Amino acid sequence: MNDKIFNEVSNGIVDVPGFKVAGVACDIRKKKKDRLDLGIIFSKIPCQAAGTFTENKVKAAPVELCMQTLNAGNSFHAIVVNSGNANAVTGLQGVIDAKLMQSLTAELCSVDPGSVFVCSTGKIGITLPMENIKNGISAAVEALSSENQQGENITKAILTTDTRTKKATIKINLEEGKVITIGAIAKGAGMIQPNMATMLSFIATDAQIEGSLFQEILKSAVDSSFNSITVDGDMSTNDTVLALANGNSGIEVNRANEVIAKNFSQALVQLCQDLAYQIVSDGEKISKVVEVVVVNALSKVDAEKVARTVGNSSLVKSSWYGADPNWGRLMGALGCSGAEIKPEKLNIQYAESVKPFSENFSNTVDIIKNGEPCYTNETEWDKLVALERFIVFIDLNLGKEKFHLISTDLTPEYVSYNKSEK
Amino acid sequence: MNDKIFNEVSNGIVDVPGFKVAGVACDIRKKKKDRLDLGIIFSKIPCQAAGTFTENKVKAAPVELCMQTLNAGNSFHAIVVNSGNANAVTGLQGVIDAKLMQSLTAELCSVDPGSVFVCSTGKIGITLPMENIKNGISAAVEALSSENQQGENITKAILTTDTRTKKATIKINLEEGKVITIGAIAKGAGMIQPNMATMLSFIATDAQIEGSLFQEILKSAVDSSFNSITVDGDMSTNDTVLALANGNSGIEVNRANEVIAKNFSQALVQLCQDLAYQIVSDGEKISKVVEVVVVNALSKVDAEKVARTVGNSSLVKSSWYGADPNWGRLMGALGCSGAEIKPEKLNIQYAESVKPFSENFSNTVDIIKNGEPCYTNETEWDKLVALERFIVFIDLNLGKEKFHLISTDLTPEYVSYNKSEK
Repeated sequence: MNDKIFNEVSNGIVDVPGFKVAGVACDIRKKKKDRLDLGIIFSKIPCQAAGTFTENKVKAAPVELCMQTLNAGNSFHAIVVNSGNANAVTGLQGVIDAKLMQSLTAELCSVDPGSVFVCSTGKIGITLPMENIKNGISAAVEALSSENQQGENITKAILTTDTRTKKATIKINLEEGKVITIGAIAKGAGMIQPNMATMLSFIATDAQIEGSLFQEILKSAVDSSFNSITVDGDMSTNDTVLALANGNSGIEVNRANEVIAKNFSQALVQLCQDLAYQIVSDGEKISKVVEVVVVNALSKVDAEKVARTVGNSSLVKSSWYGADPNWGRLMGALGCSGAEIKPEKLNIQYAESVKPFSENFSNTVDIIKNGEPCYTNETEWDKLVALERFIVFIDLNLGKEKFHLISTDLTPEYVSYNKSEK
Repeated sequence: MNDKIFNEVSNGIVDVPGFKVAGVACDIRKKKKDRLDLGIIFSKIPCQAAGTFTENKVKAAPVELCMQTLNAGNSFHAIVVNSGNANAVTGLQGVIDAKLMQSLTAELCSVDPGSVFVCSTGKIGITLPMENIKNGISAAVEALSSENQQGENITKAILTTDTRTKKATIKINLEEGKVITIGAIAKGAGMIQPNMATMLSFIATDAQIEGSLFQEILKSAVDSSFNSITVDGDMSTNDTVLALANGNSGIEVNRANEVIAKNFSQALVQLCQDLAYQIVSDGEKISKVVEVVVVNALSKVDAEKVARTVGNSSLVKSSWYGADPNWGRLMGALGCSGAEIKPEKLNIQYAESVKPFSENFSNTVDIIKNGEPCYTNETEWDKLVALERFIVFIDLNLGKEKFHLISTDLTPEYVSYNKSEK
């Protein structure tokens, strides 16, 4: 009872009763005809929705439109999404094109335009090829299905430089055999830093939940998952997480029933962390995933500053790439985070990661004790930094706040890969 | 009259009358016997001093000692400096060793210990090989000279991963044939971001100047030079700029004579900018120097935020490396700086750099006008980004404040080079 169990094989959104999806190819990149690049998520039952969006001041046209749609609407039916072109930095034409995607999808699905969200991801600064997009939307609406094949297609249609599809499904087993399902898909890869990453994630559930509570629970889940990862410290113009709840299960999630609300909230955190880890471990040309856990900071803000300064330092990330047990760069980075630290109180350990975002570690090795290097542990430390996943555990010994960031190394291949978009 | 002229051939500190220097080899790295690694700067005439130090909360022992020495003392005679070992994150032993370097140098130079500054640069987390250091100090005091050979030796002795020595001399020609000389040396290379960079710079002058005015003028010159460059966004534990004024010229710089004070101040800015540019253009494995000029920001802080976010973005720096005319990453980066911006008011130009830190550009090309890309200029833009030096000029069109940052590209070689210190 009250178990939350991940599906062993997830089919993403189509695991959730009442949702149909489709992923089609409409040649948005104008050079890869067969590449899936447009998708639709649809629920005939009207949904409540929640969303979180990039905090970048340069927001793509579809992001602005999503925010307006979410604020203005009461019930929602669909998300239309394309990859290959972000429709960002595209001026007035971009706004017109995003609205056209919205109205076309609405018309073909026989729903109100205000119930359709629009998302785009890909190259910045180029207007959308609208003829291709129109063909794509028609084909996608035709193909809408709750079968696994289209479930697979849409996970592929949203990818850009990702090398793998990203999806997860979690079931919450409540009393009397009642079950809530949450299914989700995501894309990531580059420009991955918080608020949000260059990422899209779409979440569907058959729970029945009121909009403002849904928003609150989603925001909190996103903060401890998608907003706690970094690949390259860059924040995108298009980051969006959208969640739809169609109420198909008949189970109500509300503030009155704390048990169900807590279970739903925990399940959403687990689902989002699972997807966030899928994103960071498929970061562009990375070779290692490193979790930076900062504890006992004076404030949450300080804990996050230290974690991000360490997790985004080019020198620290280069040493992770080289499996170099390097305390100098670590100390250098955390001293310039702007957070309150006292070097003489610092303890740092490296450890083996047991499970992403977990605080259970194994094979812990002391690196810095009271601000001074532990020279004798270097052999053990060498073994840890050679792993593909490890933990850097930083105890500031000043207060009670913590932050858990999942980062990666920086590789020469990342730079070569990103040297040109031509 | 009132001309400020750079020496065509600089010999650094020894160009300044009354100063002697030496650079010797004492095998601090314990594998490169002949590599020069310890230096002393000495003035028999007591000097006024000024200094600026890293804002990193993890400060090396010699940095703490320099700050104490500067605060406690009234007159100063010497700087002793070693490379190969930063004496940082070395606990109590580090403090003892730094003080021993100070007292040994003072004894052999027959001056008060409180008149000697100590600086170290190199690997972090390893205690100094004090026997070698002692031998080095003895040899350096023996070798002190105002000849060019030792002038050259000390510029080499302070280098770490630098590929070139860094020095500059400027003469201020005043009325009646009076001349003030300022000579300086520096080292840089990695961990180069402000406040300060992993850098040391030593400045000597024969002006006669009172300590608090000297400090004020130095601080201002450092802000618009050494604190306005970035290679990798990392800030070191050891950054130090120290300036000594022995008054040997008999020319007084004071608040009463505005003409002389202004000339001295401008000359110091020019000298520091010259050295800062030498540091950034010798950044570890860089291939391009890019000046990011942000104008018309609402505040100075905003202008600096935008410049640093653009100049430290891994994605933007990778595109510079690839000579890719990429507005998407630029817009993405500047939207997430935290500064107030209005995308629709933004104008961005690329241009050819005429002279570092100057605001005269040539061959200006519009990239973004009122927030939208200028597609027609791509051929011209292609030519600019292929250069080894260019300007990114960002007009926020909101206020009146500006910031000028000199940055570099990010190369695969930087990552490979920094993957290990073993």
